[in-house]
Amino acid sequence: MHKKPEILNRHMVAESRLFRVESIDLRFSNGVERTYERLVPGGSGAVMMVALLDDETIALIREYGGGVEDYTLTLPKGAIDLGESMRDACNRELQEEIGFAAREFVYLKKMSLSPSYMRGGIDVVLARDLYPSKLEGDEPEPLELVEWKLKDLPELYARDDFNEGRAIGALAVAIEYLAGRFDGTPLS
Amino acid sequence: MHKKPEILNRHMVAESRLFRVESIDLRFSNGVERTYERLVPGGSGAVMMVALLDDETIALIREYGGGVEDYTLTLPKGAIDLGESMRDACNRELQEEIGFAAREFVYLKKMSLSPSYMRGGIDVVLARDLYPSKLEGDEPEPLELVEWKLKDLPELYARDDFNEGRAIGALAVAIEYLAGRFDGTPLS
Repeated sequence: MHKKPEILNRHMVAESRLFRVESIDLRFSNGVERTYERLVPGGSGAVMMVALLDDETIALIREYGGGVEDYTLTLPKGAIDLGESMRDACNRELQEEIGFAAREFVYLKKMSLSPSYMRGGIDVVLARDLYPSKLEGDEPEPLELVEWKLKDLPELYARDDFNEGRAIGALAVAIEYLAGRFDGTPLS
Repeated sequence: MHKKPEILNRHMVAESRLFRVESIDLRFSNGVERTYERLVPGGSGAVMMVALLDDETIALIREYGGGVEDYTLTLPKGAIDLGESMRDACNRELQEEIGFAAREFVYLKKMSLSPSYMRGGIDVVLARDLYPSKLEGDEPEPLELVEWKLKDLPELYARDDFNEGRAIGALAVAIEYLAGRFDGTPLS
């Protein structure tokens, strides 16, 4: 294991409404110096949910992705509001995005988007014991709820419109949890 | 399925050495207007590899992530150079990052980092029939090769230093391919 590089200098080099880019000058333990850039998130974190509609069925949402300029299928997710607990954020986002609340939340894992270029992460949470309950979100148009059987995940992975890497990652971890091969932590 | 929103206007709002941020004004089919921002990648794409050292063992790398300011485990990956084929990019990155070349490459899937906020994607490729072959890369320090058994993936997912969402996603897709439940395409 290497000793961490020394941070010689850091400063903001670009900023927009949503994105902030920080430049970092590093000296590695072998003396090599490099300048890295990374995205620095604002806010209080984010959650992504594997929500079980029943023991065999998960909830997907179909929404417009401004990044890819097309509709895609993905998991319900959203930002944690300032001062909000992770459980409350999960339950709010579920009600806004799929019209269900949940009685049980299990924390699975923090995932990074890109350890090389981004500081932020998203917390993956399993939600179950769902019941209908709707909240108004800030979506420009209603999201479409798409039910998907866990046994049909390979067909989901094969769809071009299901392509968010960390959503596939979240499902993989949830499958291991449900099979008893990965430990989760109940969120209270 | 919704009709795609109309793009009313788009322009660059921030730029750094590595990142470019584009602002897009959209009008959704229900008349609601929103301004989105997204990251626009440069370059010719990128590849991420599930490299089989033998039928039961994959290659991980341990490298410093400037985004998270720590060493993490992840899959070999890198940018495709201008004019380079995807197969050549895979084989170059493997030799630079783990000191092996491969005789067989199977294309699995294009994954997006964030369909909401980023245009770019990464192509997931399975590599097998490996043999020792080394190329000098542009890494500031040598990467550490870490061998991991496929049967021990749940233990890998549970490690805090293995957290890149799309790497977990790439492994999940590769597992389905190896089990015969997901179709790949040989890269020639």
